[in-house]
Amino acid sequence: MPLNIPRTIEWVENKVRLINQLKLPYALEYIETGDWRRVAEAIRTMEIRGAPAIGVAAAFALALATIHSSARTLSETLKELEECAEALKRTRPTAVNLFWAVSRVLDEARKAAEIEDLRKRVVETALMIQRIDEEANRMIGNYGEKLIENGDTVMTICNAGSLATSYYGTATAPLYVAQEKGTKFRVIALETRPYLQGARLTAWELKQAGIEVKVVTDNAIGIVMQKERVDLVITGADRITSKGYVANKVGTYPLALVAKEHGVPFYVAAPTSTFDLSIEKGEEIPIELRPSEEVTLMFGKRITPEGVDAIYYAFDVTPPKLITGIITEKGVLYPPFDKSIKRVLL
Amino acid sequence: MPLNIPRTIEWVENKVRLINQLKLPYALEYIETGDWRRVAEAIRTMEIRGAPAIGVAAAFALALATIHSSARTLSETLKELEECAEALKRTRPTAVNLFWAVSRVLDEARKAAEIEDLRKRVVETALMIQRIDEEANRMIGNYGEKLIENGDTVMTICNAGSLATSYYGTATAPLYVAQEKGTKFRVIALETRPYLQGARLTAWELKQAGIEVKVVTDNAIGIVMQKERVDLVITGADRITSKGYVANKVGTYPLALVAKEHGVPFYVAAPTSTFDLSIEKGEEIPIELRPSEEVTLMFGKRITPEGVDAIYYAFDVTPPKLITGIITEKGVLYPPFDKSIKRVLL
Repeated sequence: MPLNIPRTIEWVENKVRLINQLKLPYALEYIETGDWRRVAEAIRTMEIRGAPAIGVAAAFALALATIHSSARTLSETLKELEECAEALKRTRPTAVNLFWAVSRVLDEARKAAEIEDLRKRVVETALMIQRIDEEANRMIGNYGEKLIENGDTVMTICNAGSLATSYYGTATAPLYVAQEKGTKFRVIALETRPYLQGARLTAWELKQAGIEVKVVTDNAIGIVMQKERVDLVITGADRITSKGYVANKVGTYPLALVAKEHGVPFYVAAPTSTFDLSIEKGEEIPIELRPSEEVTLMFGKRITPEGVDAIYYAFDVTPPKLITGIITEKGVLYPPFDKSIKRVLL
Repeated sequence: MPLNIPRTIEWVENKVRLINQLKLPYALEYIETGDWRRVAEAIRTMEIRGAPAIGVAAAFALALATIHSSARTLSETLKELEECAEALKRTRPTAVNLFWAVSRVLDEARKAAEIEDLRKRVVETALMIQRIDEEANRMIGNYGEKLIENGDTVMTICNAGSLATSYYGTATAPLYVAQEKGTKFRVIALETRPYLQGARLTAWELKQAGIEVKVVTDNAIGIVMQKERVDLVITGADRITSKGYVANKVGTYPLALVAKEHGVPFYVAAPTSTFDLSIEKGEEIPIELRPSEEVTLMFGKRITPEGVDAIYYAFDVTPPKLITGIITEKGVLYPPFDKSIKRVLL
C-alpha cells in the first residue's frame, strides 16, 4: 500500500513547489514559485531544510533561473546562471549538498552549444539530482527494512526524514519500507532541542504515513531504555569519516552510548555521498557553534535569565565503536568500518 | 564575602514568605501569607517546588494553622491541625519530605499539654525542620567544596539548588561554599526539559550569587565533554537505595554515562534523609510517569502534531558503577557504596 508521504519539493510545470517546513506541524502549506530568488529565500529562512533537500532546491532554483531568463545569448545566459549560483551558495554556508548540486548543474550548463540546449541540460540535471537522492533513499530503505521486525520499537533523533530529502528520508526510509510491507512497529522520536525537528517534523511525517510514533525529551534516552523495550536505533548522518566517525545532530553520541550500554543495536543511515574520505578522526570534523539565542529563546520567549547565555554546538561525533552498522544505498556496512567503507567507496 | 542567595522560604512575624518560583527567572516575586491554605496552594501549583523546600513549606503551613486557629480547646486545635495535615498531604503525592515533615510536626503537637504549648511546639518544630535542612546543606557544601579547584568547569542538571531547599541547595552547596572561599570556576547547567529548571532556576540562582554559568540543551552532554573541558559533575538525588542506585531528574543517568566515558568524576550531593535503606536495586524505585502534555505543550504552544503524544518519565536511575562519590552532610561516601552507606546510616 503506498504511504501518505508528502513530497518535500517538486518540479511542476516549470515551477518549484515545496513544503513550508516552518509551518509544520501546525499546517501543511506549500510555496509555489517560478522565481529562483524565492527558492533561495526559502533555503535561507529554513522554509526548506535538510542537506539533501537543500541540494535539490538549489538545483531547481538554477533551473528556474535559466527558464525564465531574458538573456539573448548563450554567454549572457551562462553569466546569469553563474551569478545566480553565487547567490545560492550564500544562503546556507554549511550544507555540503548545496555546493555539490550547484557545481554539478553549472558543469553541465557549460557543455551547452546554445541557449535551448543549456536550459534542457540544467533542468534535466536538476531532476536527475532529485531522482538520484530519492533512489539512494529507497535503496537505504530496502536494506534497512530487514532490520525491523514485528513488534519492534525503533528510536530516532532529529529529522533525517523525507522532509530532509527529496523523498523517503535516510533514517526514515527503512521505516517507510517496513510500513509498506505491513510490519507492525512503533517509533520513539527524540524531540531534539533546540529546533525540535523530532517533535515537529519526524512525528508529523511518520504520523502522515500511518506509523505509530511517540515523542520523548532528549534527556529521556536513559530511562526509556531502562523502562521500555527498545529494539533498534536508526539515525541520520551529516558527515562520516574514512574510519567511521559520524557527525550528526547533537544528542546522537549520548544516544549511541546509552544504546551500547543496553545492548541495543545502533545504526546510521546515510547515502555514500555523506562519506568524507579526506579525513579519518572525529576531531577533524568541524563542529558548527551556533548563536546562543537559538537555545535561549523559545517561541520568542527567553528561557534563561538576562545575562546567561547558552553554548550551542549543533552536532556531535559518534565513534565507530558505538555503531552497529551504516545503512547505505550500496548495502549495510559493518565493522571494521575503515575496511568496509573503503570496499564500497573506492 | 556573603553571597546573594535569596531565601526560598522564611518565617517572618507569624507569616510565611516564599519566592514564587513560577515567576522566575523573569521576576523575583514573593508570596507572603498568614493563611495555611495559601501555602498549600503554593505547593500544589508549584509556586514552591523541590522536595526539601516543600517539606519546610508544609511544616510552616501547620504552624500558621495553629497560630491563626480559633479553636477553644486543645483537642479541637489538634483536630484542626490533623485536618490541615491531611489537606497538605494531598497537594503533591510524591515528595517524601512533605510526609516526613507533616508527621514530625504532628508527633510533636500530640505531646502538648495545652493550646499555647501546642502552638509553641509546632512553630519550633517547623523552624527546626528548616534549620536541619539548611545545616545539612551547609555541611554538604563544606565537604563538596574540596572537590572544586581554580579554573574548573562543573556540570549540573535540573535545580538541586537553594530554591529546592531551605538554603544553599544540595548540588549547589559545594558551588556556593567554593564561591565564598574565592575559588574561580564556572558552571554548565543542563536546561532540563520539560520544565527547564536548569535554564530557569539554577542559572538564575547561580547568577544571583555571582557564579559564572552557561546553559546547554540536554542533548549537548556528549559534545560538551568532547569540546569543552569538564572537570566535575554534581547532581542532586530524589532517592538513593542501600546499594547506591540513585533516582534523580530524568537525564542524570545519560549524563553519568557520558561522564564515565570521558573520565569526568560524577558526584551526587544529598542529605542522608534521601537514602532509602528498605530497597537495594534501581528497579525497585518507583518512577513517576507524568502527563504527556507536560512535554508536548511549551508556553501553551503545542510542539507535536495533534494526535502524537509524549512518554514522560520524570526521573531515571543511575547505577552505582557510574558514581564517583555521594556527598552527604556526614562526609563524602565512596564505593563500595553498599558498605559506605551502611557505615554512615546505621
